[in-house]
Formats: sequence, C-alpha cells, structure tokens
Amino acid sequence: MAADSHAGAITFANVEEAAARIAAHAQRTPVLRSRSLDLLAGAELHFKIEALQRTGAFKFRGASNAVWSLPDEVARRGVVTHSSGNHGAALALAARTRGIAAHVVVPEGAVRSKVAAIEAYGATVHRCAASIAAREEAAERVRMQTGATLVHPYTNPDVIAGQGTAAMELLGETGPLDALVAPVGGGGLVSGTAIAVAAMAPRATVWAAEPSGAADTAESLRRGERVGSFVPDTICDGLRTLVGEINFSILRAHRVQALTVDDSRTVEAMRLIWQRLKILVEPSAAIVLAAVLEHPAQFSGRRVGLILSGGNVDLDALPWMPLSASTSATP
Amino acid sequence: MAADSHAGAITFANVEEAAARIAAHAQRTPVLRSRSLDLLAGAELHFKIEALQRTGAFKFRGASNAVWSLPDEVARRGVVTHSSGNHGAALALAARTRGIAAHVVVPEGAVRSKVAAIEAYGATVHRCAASIAAREEAAERVRMQTGATLVHPYTNPDVIAGQGTAAMELLGETGPLDALVAPVGGGGLVSGTAIAVAAMAPRATVWAAEPSGAADTAESLRRGERVGSFVPDTICDGLRTLVGEINFSILRAHRVQALTVDDSRTVEAMRLIWQRLKILVEPSAAIVLAAVLEHPAQFSGRRVGLILSGGNVDLDALPWMPLSASTSATP
Repeated sequence: MAADSHAGAITFANVEEAAARIAAHAQRTPVLRSRSLDLLAGAELHFKIEALQRTGAFKFRGASNAVWSLPDEVARRGVVTHSSGNHGAALALAARTRGIAAHVVVPEGAVRSKVAAIEAYGATVHRCAASIAAREEAAERVRMQTGATLVHPYTNPDVIAGQGTAAMELLGETGPLDALVAPVGGGGLVSGTAIAVAAMAPRATVWAAEPSGAADTAESLRRGERVGSFVPDTICDGLRTLVGEINFSILRAHRVQALTVDDSRTVEAMRLIWQRLKILVEPSAAIVLAAVLEHPAQFSGRRVGLILSGGNVDLDALPWMPLSASTSATP
Repeated sequence: MAADSHAGAITFANVEEAAARIAAHAQRTPVLRSRSLDLLAGAELHFKIEALQRTGAFKFRGASNAVWSLPDEVARRGVVTHSSGNHGAALALAARTRGIAAHVVVPEGAVRSKVAAIEAYGATVHRCAASIAAREEAAERVRMQTGATLVHPYTNPDVIAGQGTAAMELLGETGPLDALVAPVGGGGLVSGTAIAVAAMAPRATVWAAEPSGAADTAESLRRGERVGSFVPDTICDGLRTLVGEINFSILRAHRVQALTVDDSRTVEAMRLIWQRLKILVEPSAAIVLAAVLEHPAQFSGRRVGLILSGGNVDLDALPWMPLSASTSATP
C-alpha cells in the first residue's frame, strides 16, 4: 500500500539522528509525577513536560531537526512556513540558532501574543487571509521569491522524527510503559511518538487524544480512510487541524487509537494540572490527562506516559474563569 | 552576645543531616533557567523550583526534618502547630509519612483551599480566633492534652536546618553563585539559606526579599534590633509574619541584606514567571524575581540563585485579572 510504504519512510533511526542533531539546541525536559493525580487516575502517570521546551512547546524539536538537517547551501536561503501558533515561533527560533532567515505566513485573526513571539524570535511575518488556500499560496510566493525551504508544521519527515524525540527521552527515563498518550491535531507529535514507541516499548499502546469538536482523526481511523475536511469547534487551538496524510498512515501502521474528549473535561484537567503539578499547560496539552481520566478502563493499573505538549496560554482569558471572577479578585 | 550564640547553634552539619534525613521523603526539585529572563535581568538566573516540592512549597523540607528528628517515643504522641497555610499542610504530610498524628490549629479566616489541603493530608484541624495569642494558646492546649510536640513554622532549629537543604541542592548543582535571593516572612527559609551559603559559597551575598507592606526585617536590620510588632499589608500571604528572633540572629550573623519590593512589582514578576518559566508560583515566591529586576545595580552581570518558594495560589483570584476579564474570557 502506498500509504504504508509512505509511513515506513520514517524510522526510529531517524528519531535517534534527530535526538543527536537537536541535543545542543533543545531542552531535555523533565518528567514529573504526582501522587494525587495517580490516585485520581488509579494509574501510574509519567508526565513529559514539553511546556518547558524552548518556545514553550514540543514544536521546537521538529523545527530544529528540520532546520539543522538542511545542507549549508540550502539553509543559507532560509526557511518558510505558515502557522498562527507554536510552530511559527519554533521555526523562527530554530532558524535563529542556525543564523538563517525565517519567514512565517500568519493568517488574519491569529492570537496577537503568538505573533509577537514569532517576531521576537526574529522571523519576518507575512500576513495573509485566514483560509488554508491563502496560507499555502502566500508561503509558496515567499518560497519562490526567496528560495527558502518550506518546513511544513506536521507532514515534514524531519519534523515528525524530531517530535518523536520527546517520547524517546520519556521512555529512556521510565523504561517501557504500558501506554502513551499524546494530543492529535495535524499529527506530527503523535506519529513521531508512535515511531519511538514501536522501537522502545513495542507492547505499549499509543493513544491520540482529540477534542470531540475536532475529531477527524477518530473518524478517519474508524472509517479506515482519511476524512477530507471538517469544521473544528474546540478551545484547543493547537488541535484544530486536519490530520496530515503521512501522519494518518503512520497512525494506522502503528495501530494508534483515538480517544475523544469534551472541552469541558479538558478545562477541568487543565486546572488540575496547574494545581497539582504547578505547570502551566495549554488546553491542547491538558487534553491528554482528560483522556486518561475519562477512560479509566483503558488505563487503570497501568504505567502511562502523558506528553504535556505545550504551555502557551493566554493568562487574561482562562477558560474556567467564572463571570463573577472580577468581583472576587484580590487587589 | 546571646543572639549570636543562639544563631551559631544551627550549623551546616545540621543542614547536611537534614538532607540525609529527608532524602527518602522530599522531592529533589529542579533548577530552571530562562534565556529571556536572563536578558531582562542582565544577569544569569538559576531558579530553584520549590513549587514542585511536595505540598507545593519548601515548607515540607523543614517539617519532615522536624518530624523525622523526633525519637520514637516522642514521635508516637504526634506533632502540633498553628498555621493558616503551607506549613500546616507540610507538617500534616510529614506526620503521615511517619504514621503519627498531626494537629494543626487554624485561625478563623484562613483560605479554605489551604485548610482543605491540611485535612486532605490527614491532620486534625482545630479552629481558633485569628490573633497570634489565640493561636498559641490553642496549640498549647492541644499539646497539653495530647503530648504532641510543637513544631513551630520557622523558629524550630530542625525546621531551619531543613529549609537550608533547598539552597544546598541548588549550590550543589550550580557551584558557587554570586548571590542568592529568598523571600522573608518568619525567616525560616532565608536563615537556613544563609547557613548553607556560608559553607558552600562563602563569598556570595544572601538577599532577603520582603514586601514593602511587611518590611519588618528590613527595618530590624537597619535598626540593629528586632522590631516587635507591625501590621502587614501585602498580597504575599506567606510573608505577613514578623521575623523570628532566632531567624533574625542568623540573618545578622551572616550579614544577610534585605530588599523591599512593592506588591505591584511582585504581581508583574509572578506573571513573568508563569509566562516564561511555565511554573505556577504564588506571590510570596515571585517576590524574589521582582527584587532582582528592581535592583539591577546589585545583580547585573552576576550569577544569581532565586528560590521560588511555593506555588499554592488561588486560581480563581489572580491578582492581575483586570475588572474586564469576565467579558474577555473565552468559553
């Protein structure tokens, strides 16, 4: 099958190469435990804290691997991507570590603080309309004009291999686990995770946690073919993307299973993580704990790895803030 | 001088013993760095993350050292303290690790979530009026009735030695620093820190960060004698206490210097730490970064250790929430 051979093109050796390539740039993030969350879940939870990765998200792993994989003469012309969020900031910083230009096409309506981060890391921001077509067209225009290499947020094989280094580090510390849970949007993180797990903990199940309001991966796995379009409705702003074709092939090849989660549960889990782990995570990360708590039959008594993917959250608009918060706030 | 001989009674050997005693119970907390905060401060900052200590604060170090220092026949009768906050929870959990009873006298008006934590760790809560006299009286009554040992939150020598283990771990990882900054309330943490620093980094300056609205330590150091009373006015709920007598002696003996900080700066620093380090810290912890940013002349170009003392914060009442937050909150 074309899809499977496609999926097989990225191997654990690529993940190991990525780990060596990014070692000097990326953070080796800590793994945290919480007795109280273990009790709540009835399972042994190992949290990989990618909120503590540079730029505040795992995205820096894939972006640095892609940037540092380029031959000098190609790298010299810079890199380009389209992103309204964490991948844009990650690529900007990765390019800066190599001293090359980064262009990030940002759709209208992107969160201002995330655009500010992209600029702060030294990238050139190109504005475009909000549609996927407009983004791709704008990125293509920049590529033609500058000769920059396109680094796609989740279908690029070097990006996927780079994202796999998070699970590789986690398993290196914990030994084989029974299950790993990662969020799924475009699928860069969970497909890289599946490749690492297949090599390091072949008996473990990989779960893709997905918002009920953006459950194209769950639906695609059920149907056995990739859903072509959908209208996302979720507060998990990092997970509003359709799963990529290569990513879907990898998920199928590795029998990754999907768990859908309502946003209300994700918000509760986010608050729990803030309170118990003292780590700021964004909704797109907290969804993995919500998935575990919502599906006890799958995790009870097991050793579970949870990849807390990022911590870039708007502190002025916390989703659990009641309408009366302003009156109860202390000065 | 009585004060100095008093101060000399706790030595670095006591801190080393404490470290060995609590190793099986307390967390060895991580040290984090942030390039962007280094740039902002113009200094090399090493953050010791005590928000990741068990019970969410450094207090567990001193409480466990005190609990595990008791001879069996004394321990059997339990421990008692008065506390409206982190020390109560820390003593409750420390007692539970040894399988003995804990009694915590809690004044009226204490934060409900903190009282809930004390109960969740299995302590018996005794209510009393809010005054210091009422607290001490209630604790004494429990002590007489039960034979429990009083473990004072900051004047107990085993507590002070235990709190010193945070700086000991930090310096063990970073090597000698130029300066260490810890918050000061009763002074348990900063006096333990001073003892560890004197042995491990004798050329380093220890700074006590104190809210302008509770600046009794700064005033006492200026006068050369301990201020007897004051009315605290600060959002740093962990720092509303008068510095203890033994703690003040230790600060003087080790030439600790005070830096006062306005609450508005502490709130800004708290937000910065949440955003950049992705760690939830409470105002009483964030004050150390505010002190560094407010006094660049003291820290510019230096290697600085900052003890982020705790992360037990009320998520429903964040001090930077504008009155309009309720209208901008996403669902």
